[in-house]
Amino acid sequence: MNDSATSPARRIPVGVLGATGSVGQRFVTLLAEHPWFELVCVTGSERSIGRRYGEAARWALPQPIPPAIADLTVEASEPGLAPQLLFSALNRDVAQTVERPCAEAGHLVVSNAATHRMDPDVPLLVPEVNADHLALLEGQAVPAGGGLATNPNCSTIGLTLALAPLHRAFGIEAASVVTLQALSGAGIPGVPSLVALDNVVPFIGGEEDKVETEPQRILGTLASGRVVAAGFPISAQCNRVAVTDGHTECVSLRLQGDPDPAEVRRALMDFRSADTAGLPSAPEVPILVTEEPDRPQPRLDRDRGAGMAITVGRIRRCPILGIKFVLLSHNTLRGAAGGALLVAEQIVSRGLVPGLRRSP
Amino acid sequence: MNDSATSPARRIPVGVLGATGSVGQRFVTLLAEHPWFELVCVTGSERSIGRRYGEAARWALPQPIPPAIADLTVEASEPGLAPQLLFSALNRDVAQTVERPCAEAGHLVVSNAATHRMDPDVPLLVPEVNADHLALLEGQAVPAGGGLATNPNCSTIGLTLALAPLHRAFGIEAASVVTLQALSGAGIPGVPSLVALDNVVPFIGGEEDKVETEPQRILGTLASGRVVAAGFPISAQCNRVAVTDGHTECVSLRLQGDPDPAEVRRALMDFRSADTAGLPSAPEVPILVTEEPDRPQPRLDRDRGAGMAITVGRIRRCPILGIKFVLLSHNTLRGAAGGALLVAEQIVSRGLVPGLRRSP
Amino acid sequence: MNDSATSPARRIPVGVLGATGSVGQRFVTLLAEHPWFELVCVTGSERSIGRRYGEAARWALPQPIPPAIADLTVEASEPGLAPQLLFSALNRDVAQTVERPCAEAGHLVVSNAATHRMDPDVPLLVPEVNADHLALLEGQAVPAGGGLATNPNCSTIGLTLALAPLHRAFGIEAASVVTLQALSGAGIPGVPSLVALDNVVPFIGGEEDKVETEPQRILGTLASGRVVAAGFPISAQCNRVAVTDGHTECVSLRLQGDPDPAEVRRALMDFRSADTAGLPSAPEVPILVTEEPDRPQPRLDRDRGAGMAITVGRIRRCPILGIKFVLLSHNTLRGAAGGALLVAEQIVSRGLVPGLRRSP
Amino acid sequence: MNDSATSPARRIPVGVLGATGSVGQRFVTLLAEHPWFELVCVTGSERSIGRRYGEAARWALPQPIPPAIADLTVEASEPGLAPQLLFSALNRDVAQTVERPCAEAGHLVVSNAATHRMDPDVPLLVPEVNADHLALLEGQAVPAGGGLATNPNCSTIGLTLALAPLHRAFGIEAASVVTLQALSGAGIPGVPSLVALDNVVPFIGGEEDKVETEPQRILGTLASGRVVAAGFPISAQCNRVAVTDGHTECVSLRLQGDPDPAEVRRALMDFRSADTAGLPSAPEVPILVTEEPDRPQPRLDRDRGAGMAITVGRIRRCPILGIKFVLLSHNTLRGAAGGALLVAEQIVSRGLVPGLRRSP
Repeated sequence: MNDSATSPARRIPVGVLGATGSVGQRFVTLLAEHPWFELVCVTGSERSIGRRYGEAARWALPQPIPPAIADLTVEASEPGLAPQLLFSALNRDVAQTVERPCAEAGHLVVSNAATHRMDPDVPLLVPEVNADHLALLEGQAVPAGGGLATNPNCSTIGLTLALAPLHRAFGIEAASVVTLQALSGAGIPGVPSLVALDNVVPFIGGEEDKVETEPQRILGTLASGRVVAAGFPISAQCNRVAVTDGHTECVSLRLQGDPDPAEVRRALMDFRSADTAGLPSAPEVPILVTEEPDRPQPRLDRDRGAGMAITVGRIRRCPILGIKFVLLSHNTLRGAAGGALLVAEQIVSRGLVPGLRRSP
Repeated sequence: MNDSATSPARRIPVGVLGATGSVGQRFVTLLAEHPWFELVCVTGSERSIGRRYGEAARWALPQPIPPAIADLTVEASEPGLAPQLLFSALNRDVAQTVERPCAEAGHLVVSNAATHRMDPDVPLLVPEVNADHLALLEGQAVPAGGGLATNPNCSTIGLTLALAPLHRAFGIEAASVVTLQALSGAGIPGVPSLVALDNVVPFIGGEEDKVETEPQRILGTLASGRVVAAGFPISAQCNRVAVTDGHTECVSLRLQGDPDPAEVRRALMDFRSADTAGLPSAPEVPILVTEEPDRPQPRLDRDRGAGMAITVGRIRRCPILGIKFVLLSHNTLRGAAGGALLVAEQIVSRGLVPGLRRSP
Repeated sequence: MNDSATSPARRIPVGVLGATGSVGQRFVTLLAEHPWFELVCVTGSERSIGRRYGEAARWALPQPIPPAIADLTVEASEPGLAPQLLFSALNRDVAQTVERPCAEAGHLVVSNAATHRMDPDVPLLVPEVNADHLALLEGQAVPAGGGLATNPNCSTIGLTLALAPLHRAFGIEAASVVTLQALSGAGIPGVPSLVALDNVVPFIGGEEDKVETEPQRILGTLASGRVVAAGFPISAQCNRVAVTDGHTECVSLRLQGDPDPAEVRRALMDFRSADTAGLPSAPEVPILVTEEPDRPQPRLDRDRGAGMAITVGRIRRCPILGIKFVLLSHNTLRGAAGGALLVAEQIVSRGLVPGLRRSP
Repeated sequence: MNDSATSPARRIPVGVLGATGSVGQRFVTLLAEHPWFELVCVTGSERSIGRRYGEAARWALPQPIPPAIADLTVEASEPGLAPQLLFSALNRDVAQTVERPCAEAGHLVVSNAATHRMDPDVPLLVPEVNADHLALLEGQAVPAGGGLATNPNCSTIGLTLALAPLHRAFGIEAASVVTLQALSGAGIPGVPSLVALDNVVPFIGGEEDKVETEPQRILGTLASGRVVAAGFPISAQCNRVAVTDGHTECVSLRLQGDPDPAEVRRALMDFRSADTAGLPSAPEVPILVTEEPDRPQPRLDRDRGAGMAITVGRIRRCPILGIKFVLLSHNTLRGAAGGALLVAEQIVSRGLVPGLRRSP
C-alpha cells in the first residue's frame, strides 16, 4: 500500500444518504475508520436537516459516535451534495425519489435500498460472486462519473454467498430457506420490545419475495447487457426472533448430480474470490465452515471476519432435497453497510467511474 | 356428566413418575384440577426420595404449587406404587429401567419419554389422529390392567396434528419442517441463559431424528397387529430460540393432486375428531386457522384451547413443494403433559384397561 | 349477590377512552368479564375513529379480543358519549383536553392518566388505602352524576399499598425505592426491541417524580376538603428491564421506633381493607408475603390474586435506613386497568354518584 | 516501551487455575494478546485433567479460542505448576484448598475467588484505589517469590472505583446500592434460561454481604500491617436481570459537607491514578461520566475503555441521602479477569515479587 492510500488527506470524500437510521449508523461507524473513504456529508429527513448529526441521530451502537462526524450538519437527501460517491441507507420510498436523480446529477450511488435492485440497468452485487454484472454501469443513462449500484437484501446476501460456489460446482435445482432474522434488520424503532420478547414473529413484510428473487438475479448470467436470472425455484419463510444482530438461515438444496455432504463442504471451504482480493472490507475467507455440532450461533459467530464472513455448519443430507445446512451472516455488516462498502471498493478499485479510483 | 364423574371421592387415583422436573410440574398442575384423576403419588430421583414434594421440586411455573400435592412425600420410581395409572415424565435413561417393569407389574403407564415410542408393541398416540393404534395395548405381554402407551415428542405432536387431515384428504408425499423451539422443552436447568439470550442454537440433540420418524408411525396403518409407517420422507431442522413456551414450525408439503391453499385451509379448519369427543382435555377445535398475516405467534397463540389446540397460519403456495404454512403448539401442554393426559382419558373412556373406566 | 347484580341486562354501561392502546386493551379484556360493567363504547385517536375496534386496535394480549367488543365502532374522545361511566386510558396530553370537559358534561371519569392526579380537587386513589379521599368528589364543580377520579402511576400503586400498613403501624420517616419496570408500562410501540434486549435503561421520563410525590398524596390526610401530603421524603430511581409484565421494586425504609423485620412482616401480612370488601376486582389478600429467599419474581408472582395482589419478600434489616424488602406488582392489572376498575367499583358501591349504584 | 517488553520470547509465563469456566475463558482471551504475560498452563477439574483445553472448555465467548491455547493439556490445580505467576478463576470451595498451598510453594497467586478476600494478610485490590495495600504481601508467611493477592467481587469493583474519589474528596457517610447484574456473573451453566427470560431474580447468594463489606476494606487504611476498614455503612440489594454482560448499579450516597451534583461530577471526572499509569490493562480514564439522560446502558457502555472503564451517569440529588447516580461496569472484564490482570501488572511493574518484573 503506497502513501497516498493511507494518507487521510487523499481519502475519497463520501456521503451517506439517510445517515441517522440504523443502517446509516453502521455506515458511519465503518467509514470512520476506512482507509480509502472519508465521510464528509450526512443527510436525513426533514426533521433532522440543519441539525448536528450527533443530535439528530438516535445513536444505538456500542461504538461511540465518531466525534468529527457528530459535528457534521445534516443535509437534505438530494442531488448536488459535495461528494461524488454517495452511500444510500434511505428507506424504499425515499430512495425512489432520490437515488436516480442523484445518479443523473453525476453521483455514484451505492444503495442498500430495495427500490432499484431489480431494475434491468442496475447491478445487484455480491462482490465475490458477480463482479461481472458491474458492466451494467456502462449502460446507465447518466453523465460520466454518475451511476447506481445496489446491495442485496440482508437475508439474500448470506444465502447467495453460500449458494454461489455450489451453483458453480454442481448447479442448483431448488433452494428452500427458513430464516431466523435479527431485530436490527428492522431498524429503530423497528419491532416493539413487547412483540419481540418471549416471541417469534413468522412474517417480515416483503422479505420472502426478496429472498426468492434476488439470488436468481445475482447468480444470473450477463448476456447482451442484461442479466438472465439463474432460474431455479427458491422458497423462503422469514421469521423475526429475539436476537440483536445476525441472521440464521436453515437451507435445503437440490443439487445436480446429488453430491454428498463432504463434496458440498469442500466446495464451500475452498471458495475464494479474486474479484475482491485486497479490498479493505473483503474478508480473507468469505465462507467459514464449522464442524461444531451446534454452530453457527448468532452471538458466537456473527462477528467473524469483522462481520463480513458468513459461517456455514451442520452440512448433512436432506431426505427430500438432498443437502441441508445452517448459515449465519451479520445482517447489518455483511448484510447492509459492510456489503455496500465492499461494492464501492470494487467499483473504485477497477476505476469504473471517472473521478474515483483507488488501488488495493 | 353424572354425579360420579364430578365427585372428587370417586376420581381415579394416579401417580406421576419423575414429578419434580419441568414436564412433571406441568402434570402436577393439570392434575390438580382434573375431573377424572386425582394425583396421590409422585416419584423422583435418589436426591428427592423421602422429601416433601414442595421442597424437592424446584417449582418453576407461575401457577402456585397445589398445597395438597406439595405435602406428598416423593417416592422411588419403581413397580408397586399405589395407583394403577401412572404418568411418566421420566428422562429417557430412567424410563428404560422403569416403564416396562411397571407395566409388567400391572400399572398402566402413559409415558412422555422417548424410550419406547418406536417399540413395535407400544402405541404412539395423538388421540385425535390414531386412536385405532390403541389396539396394540392388547398385544402387550403384561397382566390384566397393565400396559404402556406413549405420547410423541413435543415437536412431533403439533406437526402430526396438522399433517393428519392433509394426509387423509390428499396424501402427503413429502414434508419439510424447520422448528423454532421454546426453552421449556429442555426443562430445568436446560439451556443456560447465557446461551439462550440474544442467540439461536441450531441444534437439539436427537430431535431431528424424532421429528423425521415419529409422524410416520403415528400416521401409519395398523395391520396384523403392527403399525406400517406412512412412508413419506420428512426433513427436519430444529432450532432453539429465546421463547419460554410454544414451538413454532415452518412447514412445506408436497401433497398428491397439488391442492391449492384454499383447499388445504378448508381441510385443516374442518378437522374434528369423534375419538376425543367429550374428553376433559380435548380442545373443542384441535386446529385453529388464523388469517392474520403475522400469526401464529408463541406469546399470543400458545394458550389457545387451554394450550391443547394448535394454530396454523400463513397457508400459501411453496414454489418447490407446493404448500407451506406456519404452525404453533404449546410444547409442555399439548406437546407433553396435556397430550399424555388426553391419551389416558381416551384409554379410560374406552374401558380398554380393566379396573380403569370413566365415561365422558 | 342478587339476580340484578349478575344479569348482563342490568349491567352498567361503560366506555373506555383511548381503548386501542396497551392499557386500553387491558381495560377491554377485564371489562369483557366484569359482573357489574358492560363495555359499550370505545374511543380512539383520529386515525381510528369510525373503524371497527377489532381492526383499529393492534391487539397485543394473549387473550383473544372479545368478539362483541371487536365489532364496536371507535368513537371520538369527547363529552356526550352514551355511557355515564368512562374509564380513561388516554395519554397525558389528550387527557388534558378531554377528561375535565367530560366530567363537566356529567360523565364520571375514572382515569389512569397522570394529568389530573395532583389536582387539589381530584382524588388519587388506592381503594384499600385512602377511600376517604373520595370525599373530594363532592367538591368538584361538576353537574350531578359527573366527576373525575384518578388511579396512580403503575409503580406508585404497588409501593403505596406496601407503605400504607407500615405508615399506619409505625410511621414512615423516609422511603428509598429502585424500580425494575416491565416493558408493558411503556405501551406499544413503546421501547424498541433493540433497546430492550440484553440491556437496562436506567431512565423513564417523568417516572421518578411521580413515584416521589404520588405516595405522599395518597397517604396524606384529608382536612378541610384538601389533602395534606404525608410529608416524608421519597427517593426513586427507575429502570426499564426486559420483562413483559410486572414491576419489581427494591425498597428501603426508615420507620419510627425502628421495628424489626418480624414486626414489619406481621404488619404487611395482616393488612386487609374493609373499604374494598366484596368488590369484584378486590383481591382477597392485597399483600402476599413470601418467605422464599429468591422471590418475588415477575414471571412467577405477577398474576397472583388475578394480578391485583402485590407480593413482598426478602424483608430484612437495612444497615442505613433500618428495613428493606422487595415488592412486585402487575403493572397493567393492579398498576393500571385493574386498579382503575377497583376505584370505579368502590365509587359505585357507595352510591357516591347519582345514577350509578351497585351493591357488592 | 523497550524491546524486551514487546518481545514475545521474553514474556512472563503464567497459568490460569480453573481455566475452563466462564471467568477462566475471559482470562484466556485477555492473556492471548497480553504484551507482558504468556499463557502456558491451564488447570481444571477432575473431569478435564489430561484433556486438550479446546475440548475440555465449553467455549462460550464470541472471540474464537486462541489456537495455541486450545492445544494446551489441562493440568490439575495444585502447587508445582511450571509458571511462577498463577491467576485463579477457581470457585470458592476449590480455591480454599489450592490457593494458599500454591502461594506457600512459591507461586504468586492473583485470585478472583472470594475465599481469601477478607483474610487480614491478603490484599484486596482495585489498583487505581489502594495500591498501598500491596504492602500486605510482605507480611505473608510464604517463601520468596510466593504470595496471594485478590480481586474484589464483580459488583464491588465498579462501586468502589466510583466511591474512591468521593471518599477522598468529601468522605462517605453512607452508601446504598441496588444492583441489576448480568448473567455472565453466574457463569455457565449459571442461571437457567427459563428463569432468566422475562424475569428478574431479586437474590444472588452471598452477593449482598460481599458488596456491603469489601468496599470498606478496599477504602480502608493500612496501619501497622493491617487494614482498618473505612467504617461507613453500605446497604446492598442485588438482582439478576436478563443482560449478558455489564452490571448496572443504582447508588445513593450521604457525603460529608453535602456537596452538590456538580461537585460530585467533577470529582468523578477528574479521577486519575498514578498507580496504574502505563500498565497494559489500565484504562486511560477509569471513570467516564456521561451527560446523556438515559445512560449508562449495558449494551452501549460496557465495552468502553476495553471493558476496563466504568461509566457513571444521572448524577443528581437524592432527597434522602443527598446524592444519587447510576454506574455501569463490565462484570467479567473490569469485574473479574481484567481486574485481576491489572493487579498482576501492578505487582510485576513494582518488582514486588522476586523473579517477576516488567516495566511499564
